[in-house]
Amino acid sequence: MSSAPLQTNGHQAPSQKRNPYAGNLSDYLSRTSNFAIIESTLREGEQFANAFFDTAKKVEIAKALDDFGVDYIEITSPAASENSRQDCATIAGLGLKAKILTHVRCHMDDARIAVETGVDGLDVVIGTSSYLREFSHGKDMDYITKQATEVINYIKSTGLEVRFSSEDSFRSELVDLLNLYRHVDQLGVNRVGIADTVGCASPRQVYELVRTLRGVVSCDIECHFHNDTGCAIANAYAALEAGATHIDTSVLGIGERNGITPLGGLMARMYAADQEYVKGKYNLPGLRDLENLVAEAVDIQVPFNNYITGYCAFTHKAGIHAKAILNNPSTYEILKPEDFGMTRYVSIGHRLTGWNAVKSRCEQLGLELTDAEVKQVTQRIKEAADQGPQGIDAVDRLLRDFHRHIIASRAGSPNSAASS
Amino acid sequence: MSSAPLQTNGHQAPSQKRNPYAGNLSDYLSRTSNFAIIESTLREGEQFANAFFDTAKKVEIAKALDDFGVDYIEITSPAASENSRQDCATIAGLGLKAKILTHVRCHMDDARIAVETGVDGLDVVIGTSSYLREFSHGKDMDYITKQATEVINYIKSTGLEVRFSSEDSFRSELVDLLNLYRHVDQLGVNRVGIADTVGCASPRQVYELVRTLRGVVSCDIECHFHNDTGCAIANAYAALEAGATHIDTSVLGIGERNGITPLGGLMARMYAADQEYVKGKYNLPGLRDLENLVAEAVDIQVPFNNYITGYCAFTHKAGIHAKAILNNPSTYEILKPEDFGMTRYVSIGHRLTGWNAVKSRCEQLGLELTDAEVKQVTQRIKEAADQGPQGIDAVDRLLRDFHRHIIASRAGSPNSAASS
Repeated sequence: MSSAPLQTNGHQAPSQKRNPYAGNLSDYLSRTSNFAIIESTLREGEQFANAFFDTAKKVEIAKALDDFGVDYIEITSPAASENSRQDCATIAGLGLKAKILTHVRCHMDDARIAVETGVDGLDVVIGTSSYLREFSHGKDMDYITKQATEVINYIKSTGLEVRFSSEDSFRSELVDLLNLYRHVDQLGVNRVGIADTVGCASPRQVYELVRTLRGVVSCDIECHFHNDTGCAIANAYAALEAGATHIDTSVLGIGERNGITPLGGLMARMYAADQEYVKGKYNLPGLRDLENLVAEAVDIQVPFNNYITGYCAFTHKAGIHAKAILNNPSTYEILKPEDFGMTRYVSIGHRLTGWNAVKSRCEQLGLELTDAEVKQVTQRIKEAADQGPQGIDAVDRLLRDFHRHIIASRAGSPNSAASS
Repeated sequence: MSSAPLQTNGHQAPSQKRNPYAGNLSDYLSRTSNFAIIESTLREGEQFANAFFDTAKKVEIAKALDDFGVDYIEITSPAASENSRQDCATIAGLGLKAKILTHVRCHMDDARIAVETGVDGLDVVIGTSSYLREFSHGKDMDYITKQATEVINYIKSTGLEVRFSSEDSFRSELVDLLNLYRHVDQLGVNRVGIADTVGCASPRQVYELVRTLRGVVSCDIECHFHNDTGCAIANAYAALEAGATHIDTSVLGIGERNGITPLGGLMARMYAADQEYVKGKYNLPGLRDLENLVAEAVDIQVPFNNYITGYCAFTHKAGIHAKAILNNPSTYEILKPEDFGMTRYVSIGHRLTGWNAVKSRCEQLGLELTDAEVKQVTQRIKEAADQGPQGIDAVDRLLRDFHRHIIASRAGSPNSAASS
């Protein structure tokens, strides 16, 4: 269906043999093993209700993102305010490995200011939704095309990268959108952008639109997903499956309203698809510090259920889960906590506990018990836990007391001479 | 492709005419406008690291879920502990509108205890992952089939509802899974269940598996998605698109590890697909209180970016977003805050602000200014905001001072006689 000259990726074949969650071997569209991140904490993230980054904080965050290994760092338009302009120039001058982009409206004034800051590229967006409403009804296409042509030709003449994007792409007229994107592709843009500005596209819609666009343009495709209806990570994945090449993220997803695709959540998703690619490219053990840096800067708590770094992400509680994890963590836990600098915790001090998990804890404590004895002490833990939560100290004490009692009774029985 | 006798739904046709995010009219598989929620805060939620619900709290939560309008309430297995058994009976005896289910391993012992509690139905799961590992390699199918048959026939003989589910369905052998589910369908189960136990299926995988299963069984299809890789809401939506009928949720998504599809997030997603259906069936303005009840019970903060009820879910900040929202909120905000008992907030005290948003605030304050004057004062807000965050009080003071100055200067000019 696609006529675009996509490269197949060396990473896919071996990982797909191992991993039932990876894409289909015959799926040449997929870029789930070969994608780039446009990290927008310093642009989209500045639109988060709580965000105010001074220059020093912006520099600190930019350096941390660069250390993590993001491909691009996108920063607020220099046209927003005088400090924004200065900060843009400052970050562009840091000499980071990541390319520095700024996000501007499709106006010559904004483009000129941006070019002068020394950034590596401009992410151009059709700037106002009122244009877009007319656009989506098929009006003003000539005006938009003319303005886009002027701005793109200007940016290209400076040698900088340029992306051209619409807003609210999923409610634009498909044919108008494809016409416009084919036009800017022919002008030589580096990327076209698809944006779910209102945050309510679904993965199958994303797959269809990106796959169609993939057949129309030869440039890269960048996607930007808001999370109002909970699909920002899944939509990013569907877009990559359909041939998108770049995904916009922010740390903890901060952005307008409840935000966009979170960097950490996307890492979790893509690690599941191609662990080696993600581990090889991004500094996964640095994720937690990066998130803490941004959370502190905007005065929020990392959500209890945050991907990878949330405090319960690797806590196993129910007996049947815990048993499986203890038998074979690599089979029953798709994210290896150690790859992210995290540790696994199997909770046993509650009434959902199971004897396999309790047995494992006994082994850790060096308490030798038969299976029948472990089942017996498990029952005692359940009884205690019915009265209230049991911390690990209380459970360990219970196990040690039980073991001491067992040893004592073995010492009194004829068959226990060989026991320790 | 499907031979199952699916009903089309009266809700779909009108809403699809209005809503570009709804499914395709010709898509007879889709149940996005006709689904049921199996609310598992009192089962899956009890597997959350922090959860300990005493009897009174379980009853309070069950009543709150019933008031919200969930179709089913699933509670912890009575086989887990003595208090769990008593709580099961207590909740089954409350006389709620929601049907009460309990979740048991596929064992006769567990099934008998559960039936005696007075619940409306049993959610049976192949209880241990070690069985499943053998199952997924094609072994022990006879054993599983025999055990399932005995348990299902027993439950059916009591007149209760019965669901039969595997664990980790996405890594089971497809043909074995379909054989088993066809068999239990013929035994007359009410539902079969698909579970992404490790939390890493993607929406297109979910769609394919559920669509295939939809063609094999005639009973209902329940789906359970963990959120480790950020797809739990999107997977639920894809499952409904493919013909699944029941979705498992918990309040705030609490559960094993980082949890499952959150009730509130699913409401956001389904509201986007069919607003009238969701508003007609569930008490959306009650969502915030329900979430606060559960958050307090398990000692967590509602995440800053929570769907619908997070404190920034309806905060608009960037100038171009704010302008669109002020022009026409119903077009540019897919969730109407008032339907959830929430309010919209357009933030203007920052350097990303735009003059349309500032103009709107001036109108709210009764300050008459020309567009040129509003642009002038917007520039002053940006300058102030470059120095640090500006609260609404500071911005209002700045606007009033500016307006006073303008009035004074108009009074001194020949053309200002008619000004207020």
